Amino acid sequence: MKDILIINGPNLNLLGKREPKIYGTQSFEDYFFRLKEKFKHSVNLTYFQSNHEGALIDKLHEVGFSEVAIVLNAGAYTHTSLAIADAIAGVISPVIEVHISNIHAREKFRHHSYLSKECSGVIVGFGLLGYDLAIQSIVEKGQN
Amino acid sequence: MKDILIINGPNLNLLGKREPKIYGTQSFEDYFFRLKEKFKHSVNLTYFQSNHEGALIDKLHEVGFSEVAIVLNAGAYTHTSLAIADAIAGVISPVIEVHISNIHAREKFRHHSYLSKECSGVIVGFGLLGYDLAIQSIVEKGQN
Amino acid sequence: MKDILIINGPNLNLLGKREPKIYGTQSFEDYFFRLKEKFKHSVNLTYFQSNHEGALIDKLHEVGFSEVAIVLNAGAYTHTSLAIADAIAGVISPVIEVHISNIHAREKFRHHSYLSKECSGVIVGFGLLGYDLAIQSIVEKGQN
Amino acid sequence: MKDILIINGPNLNLLGKREPKIYGTQSFEDYFFRLKEKFKHSVNLTYFQSNHEGALIDKLHEVGFSEVAIVLNAGAYTHTSLAIADAIAGVISPVIEVHISNIHAREKFRHHSYLSKECSGVIVGFGLLGYDLAIQSIVEKGQN
Amino acid sequence: MKDILIINGPNLNLLGKREPKIYGTQSFEDYFFRLKEKFKHSVNLTYFQSNHEGALIDKLHEVGFSEVAIVLNAGAYTHTSLAIADAIAGVISPVIEVHISNIHAREKFRHHSYLSKECSGVIVGFGLLGYDLAIQSIVEKGQN
Amino acid sequence: MKDILIINGPNLNLLGKREPKIYGTQSFEDYFFRLKEKFKHSVNLTYFQSNHEGALIDKLHEVGFSEVAIVLNAGAYTHTSLAIADAIAGVISPVIEVHISNIHAREKFRHHSYLSKECSGVIVGFGLLGYDLAIQSIVEKGQN
Amino acid sequence: MKDILIINGPNLNLLGKREPKIYGTQSFEDYFFRLKEKFKHSVNLTYFQSNHEGALIDKLHEVGFSEVAIVLNAGAYTHTSLAIADAIAGVISPVIEVHISNIHAREKFRHHSYLSKECSGVIVGFGLLGYDLAIQSIVEKGQN
Amino acid sequence: MKDILIINGPNLNLLGKREPKIYGTQSFEDYFFRLKEKFKHSVNLTYFQSNHEGALIDKLHEVGFSEVAIVLNAGAYTHTSLAIADAIAGVISPVIEVHISNIHAREKFRHHSYLSKECSGVIVGFGLLGYDLAIQSIVEKGQN
Amino acid sequence: MKDILIINGPNLNLLGKREPKIYGTQSFEDYFFRLKEKFKHSVNLTYFQSNHEGALIDKLHEVGFSEVAIVLNAGAYTHTSLAIADAIAGVISPVIEVHISNIHAREKFRHHSYLSKECSGVIVGFGLLGYDLAIQSIVEKGQN
Amino acid sequence: MKDILIINGPNLNLLGKREPKIYGTQSFEDYFFRLKEKFKHSVNLTYFQSNHEGALIDKLHEVGFSEVAIVLNAGAYTHTSLAIADAIAGVISPVIEVHISNIHAREKFRHHSYLSKECSGVIVGFGLLGYDLAIQSIVEKGQN
Amino acid sequence: MKDILIINGPNLNLLGKREPKIYGTQSFEDYFFRLKEKFKHSVNLTYFQSNHEGALIDKLHEVGFSEVAIVLNAGAYTHTSLAIADAIAGVISPVIEVHISNIHAREKFRHHSYLSKECSGVIVGFGLLGYDLAIQSIVEKGQN
Amino acid sequence: MKDILIINGPNLNLLGKREPKIYGTQSFEDYFFRLKEKFKHSVNLTYFQSNHEGALIDKLHEVGFSEVAIVLNAGAYTHTSLAIADAIAGVISPVIEVHISNIHAREKFRHHSYLSKECSGVIVGFGLLGYDLAIQSIVEKGQN
Repeated sequence: MKDILIINGPNLNLLGKREPKIYGTQSFEDYFFRLKEKFKHSVNLTYFQSNHEGALIDKLHEVGFSEVAIVLNAGAYTHTSLAIADAIAGVISPVIEVHISNIHAREKFRHHSYLSKECSGVIVGFGLLGYDLAIQSIVEKGQN
Repeated sequence: MKDILIINGPNLNLLGKREPKIYGTQSFEDYFFRLKEKFKHSVNLTYFQSNHEGALIDKLHEVGFSEVAIVLNAGAYTHTSLAIADAIAGVISPVIEVHISNIHAREKFRHHSYLSKECSGVIVGFGLLGYDLAIQSIVEKGQN
Repeated sequence: MKDILIINGPNLNLLGKREPKIYGTQSFEDYFFRLKEKFKHSVNLTYFQSNHEGALIDKLHEVGFSEVAIVLNAGAYTHTSLAIADAIAGVISPVIEVHISNIHAREKFRHHSYLSKECSGVIVGFGLLGYDLAIQSIVEKGQN
Repeated sequence: MKDILIINGPNLNLLGKREPKIYGTQSFEDYFFRLKEKFKHSVNLTYFQSNHEGALIDKLHEVGFSEVAIVLNAGAYTHTSLAIADAIAGVISPVIEVHISNIHAREKFRHHSYLSKECSGVIVGFGLLGYDLAIQSIVEKGQN
Repeated sequence: MKDILIINGPNLNLLGKREPKIYGTQSFEDYFFRLKEKFKHSVNLTYFQSNHEGALIDKLHEVGFSEVAIVLNAGAYTHTSLAIADAIAGVISPVIEVHISNIHAREKFRHHSYLSKECSGVIVGFGLLGYDLAIQSIVEKGQN
Repeated sequence: MKDILIINGPNLNLLGKREPKIYGTQSFEDYFFRLKEKFKHSVNLTYFQSNHEGALIDKLHEVGFSEVAIVLNAGAYTHTSLAIADAIAGVISPVIEVHISNIHAREKFRHHSYLSKECSGVIVGFGLLGYDLAIQSIVEKGQN
Repeated sequence: MKDILIINGPNLNLLGKREPKIYGTQSFEDYFFRLKEKFKHSVNLTYFQSNHEGALIDKLHEVGFSEVAIVLNAGAYTHTSLAIADAIAGVISPVIEVHISNIHAREKFRHHSYLSKECSGVIVGFGLLGYDLAIQSIVEKGQN
Repeated sequence: MKDILIINGPNLNLLGKREPKIYGTQSFEDYFFRLKEKFKHSVNLTYFQSNHEGALIDKLHEVGFSEVAIVLNAGAYTHTSLAIADAIAGVISPVIEVHISNIHAREKFRHHSYLSKECSGVIVGFGLLGYDLAIQSIVEKGQN
Repeated sequence: MKDILIINGPNLNLLGKREPKIYGTQSFEDYFFRLKEKFKHSVNLTYFQSNHEGALIDKLHEVGFSEVAIVLNAGAYTHTSLAIADAIAGVISPVIEVHISNIHAREKFRHHSYLSKECSGVIVGFGLLGYDLAIQSIVEKGQN
Repeated sequence: MKDILIINGPNLNLLGKREPKIYGTQSFEDYFFRLKEKFKHSVNLTYFQSNHEGALIDKLHEVGFSEVAIVLNAGAYTHTSLAIADAIAGVISPVIEVHISNIHAREKFRHHSYLSKECSGVIVGFGLLGYDLAIQSIVEKGQN
Repeated sequence: MKDILIINGPNLNLLGKREPKIYGTQSFEDYFFRLKEKFKHSVNLTYFQSNHEGALIDKLHEVGFSEVAIVLNAGAYTHTSLAIADAIAGVISPVIEVHISNIHAREKFRHHSYLSKECSGVIVGFGLLGYDLAIQSIVEKGQN
Repeated sequence: MKDILIINGPNLNLLGKREPKIYGTQSFEDYFFRLKEKFKHSVNLTYFQSNHEGALIDKLHEVGFSEVAIVLNAGAYTHTSLAIADAIAGVISPVIEVHISNIHAREKFRHHSYLSKECSGVIVGFGLLGYDLAIQSIVEKGQN
């Protein structure tokens, strides 16, 4: 069984409430329940969300020296937080960056991510399915 | 009675102590007491301050789906926080942006606000009177 | 009684005719009539509009060394006219900058104002109510 | 059975020969054989490669009004070809953008993609596994 | 009889199929038939389209040292192809640049044309009528 | 009979006197006489010139809510006047932008037009013939 | 006797009233009287001031094809008016650009002049003495 | 005895674990123990670390109006946090900025510090010895 | 005998016809004949030209894994083609970049070459003699 | 008698030999002889030229704390030498900046001067007469 | 005994005379005498100053291959001299960069140093004490 | 016999000592001896090196009006010295620019040369062989 932690950043707790045209009407908790179910035979899945940049860094430090793989959607901190980028570079666990919406089709300041260059892979624009793909990629890498 | 929450961001707790040539010598608490008094017949006024970007976002989420109107002075996060801008866009309550000093007459990096485009109005450079005007605008809109 | 002059710049004579989705359907004349009425006990209000950059400067010079306070919406000259900014800096009367729409939520070239740094305050995005707030701020300052 | 076409752009025919530190030592033909095998029960997979920008556009036009889904790695044209972006926008088939290496960890001119904003999803930095994920995403979308 | 060649670049073969809100629903072939008819007494009109930058250059070279005047809509290559600009500068035939849509009202990267400075005239935003005007201009110049 | 107003901006009154290598030696008045004659059966043509930005705006307002179509060469204001652009956007009459010289082959600051995105079409570099083409386009549109 | 016209642009009518730390306390009229006196044996000196960009252009056109030499301080239009630059380029009279203050020691947007490249000489930072030097230069050139 | 507080920002708790090629293999706690020992006769040394921008600001406020001198390594917040810069400007205690690695020899986004202009001194690239030098500087200033 | 292939890019087939002030009046074929003759004892020289970016890449792939050295003048693709740069980086043969004219003395967009950093040497501005020098360099390197 | 030193920078020793279309055919020595003569009753004039940035700084230091006024044409160092700007700021003597040609009508990199903001006046584009005007200004200031 | 050479660049010979608000009133010679005294038991200290970029490079070459450590304040050449940066990179001796004033709190063009990335450490804003710290750092490194 | 002078700029005297991975281990003196030998029948070769920008300019002036051809490697001054560029433009002798390393594959600030546009040819990246090629080009030109 592979351990995977999903970390969501600021405003992703609003999923289902916030700008549904962009992010859909499903809450992340509901989606997470289905995701756990789908991968229950191969993955031990946990979830953490915070609106605090520092709390995201603390969490990366806490798990980033263990065997846990990390799937990270840092929300708007993606585009402004050098400190989270440093945290990803500093830990040993692989980190996969996910964005629900197609950030390249939105405002210009969402086109650049400080995190991407430190991540092992980036998945953008598949809606919540992006988390499935991220987990799938960890499972498949583990099989090789 | 209209409910209005004033949210102040980083370093505004220093008001009266910090750079008095720019911000004056009155503490925000003293000013807030007078403000409550002034609008006591029409507005139920509360106040929140934090130096933590995440705490400001949490607070916006907490009240932003109720009937409360928000007056926000995000201090220096105004110029760097995409995450607060997303929080404003994500909640339903109207948010009015206030700056005590004339940010356009100060350093270049204070001229641009990530928040303005998500706010319903922006008031800049009137000193503490700016909060009065913000509240006044909510009261008047409510009367129409 | 405080003397206040409202100066409107280019295309604001079209108010009610021009791009009503952005500017509304009310003409400025109708609005001005109501504004005069509202503040008739405390303010002596006059109004000037021109599409000519030079005429706006002439008017600022004409009244800017008297006791008259000025509320200025310079329209598109806001973003291109260094000469009007110099006129504001050159006169003695305080000038308050008003914009009806939220210029920060529109095209990028409307985000920067040459005038703001010379004005004593800036009010953006409250619709026509912005003029009320500007006048209110002058009245309240006078009371202190 | 879902029809999927993989389109590879310039220099991807060198895979296995070119810069193996970045792209690995496996040829795309070998990999494609395994990919076909892996998805043989759910997907009918075909493959096209060209170093000619115009040929990539011709191919997008040819299949882009059918039921075929497209997985596109446009190589260096990703960063320079507005014409391919227009072709993606012009056709009806969904197009998923894939990059083998983490383009955000390479030279600055590889950080921007003209294509991303026209694609339905983007997958970066998973090595050849990125094609698996792209196909997986089409299969899963089809199941919902 | 004046010889005129219309050269269309990438994706213009999709006219009528592609983004009809921007480009309309008429195919270029249908339109070209009517155009030939309209000018049949004064102009001998031919037509060439390719999605290949090199093929557009080859064609410019082929006819560009004869008496043929050229009407060119280079599509997206307009904004990226220095090589086509060089070809226009290198040949002797006058070249008139046409764009169907108003490229200045679209994305920023469509505002600049590498070709314009080498062309004898530019016509933008008249829909297919732009080709009529281009031909008209050649006819009128010939009459003087 | 279609009503069309030609508006010329700053320095175009010097035509024939000013920089004849760029603008030719014919005065606009002479040319206008021939133009009126040429289109006398289909168009009622009038002409206005001013060096004042505000006067150009006033004129656009004056005729821009009638049936008159406008052909505008705003001279150097093309590259600096947001206020004229707003006026074009604010009126209802279609406006066609004309430039006598090929502005794209001149100094860099002449390559960008604030007006183009608000105009229904742009014609550049045909000399005075550009006005003929603009009028022709209005006539032809009227025939469809 | 040489004819020389001094043209002053926006806000220079405020000289003596406006920002005396930068511009001094002498009105231009007083200074002009002394200047006329000083050069009365060699120069026939006249003076024109306007806050209107268009009026400055009109004046340049009016005298610019005669024997009159022009000394121009265009104030803030120096930094924004391409149209005045075109007028200088369009007329035949030599134009000398003068600035009272050292524009290079002030705000960044005052460092660039659109006019300089079209003028025959530029004199900056000598206070009102700059006008003396400009006239002196015309006198001396005339003597050679 | 001089009171000095060392404040370390995000990811500096990883020292010894994170990117040892850049930051070395010694933990900050071990180093701090030796530092206290070295300066035990002249300095009372304390230490604070947090990954939270807000917590760093809170700490600066807490000690910044006392006699305590501050040595600050704000990690990646150095390059993004205007709010910490404001906090430094707002407090009275002198703050010395230290960076372990030579930030000017690393990625371009690490070359600029928002904090430097508010600090009384900056020490870069001496490894952990930089903290010794910062403390030394406070001791020596106190001796003069 | 050393094998050397000269590859010429777009518009270089026009040599002798195109802009003779910049490129001279000699056709490349005539020049190539003389070049073969000059080096016939040490070099086996072949020649390829295409206006197609893709065809240039195909040719680089075809010969780039053999013993053949390559002399490349990519014409305007020099300044826009990342794909050719990738092809040069991807092959094993050394590639020498040649430009006939001094690209640094021409338009700004010709000053930057995407190819130079991947080439083993660059020779600019010697006219056709540049090809001689490139071949000479290969011969001399071979002799050491 | 006023003491004035003219300092000329790099390549100005070539005057009369170098690019005579821009700088004329007269050597500076010949011109200087006439200048001494012209001002012999009011000014004691000396002259220094060097191609060495350091030598220009040494000379500014040497005379810059005496009563000598300085007229400086720093040639190309004008546009690159912060060190000469610092030297001007560091000395007490007033320094007048002169340029023979109109630097604003030449290449873009000649439009900006590091020196201007530290000089008491700037004279551009009057040919050698510029030195006359600079000396004249010093004489006139001395008379007031 | 450690050998250390202090190298000072342009205008630092004016110390005590130049802009005393920024640089203080003490001459460097006086300060150097005290510095020698302070470190006389551990360091053999010498001093070199020049306003010539080339002389600074010559000196770096002369001592840079010996055991001498170098403390360098290159003055304004810090911000413009790539050649000094190359000299630092080229020699073997460690070089420590010192600036007396806080260059980050001054003009923008003083914020960037070409030298920093080649130096082993950078000390900014401690006044003359910065030289003490630089020497101290060399002594301490030598003790480990 | 053709006279050729090789001029080397700053730090090139360190050749063989400095950064041997980039510049090799051979001193320029040794190489120059072999070069003289190689061309002894056709060329009279001399050599000059200085770290002083002014000395390079002096030397260019000294020989630049004779029959001597110049081969110049200005080292880091290539990227910063407008004054050397002016000197090249000012002299009559042809100047060939040589760089030992491939400056386009190094730091961004080495990609641009102020000198190239004034030189008759540029040779980059061939190691010391570049000087051979430069001399060869002069010899061959002389033979035509």
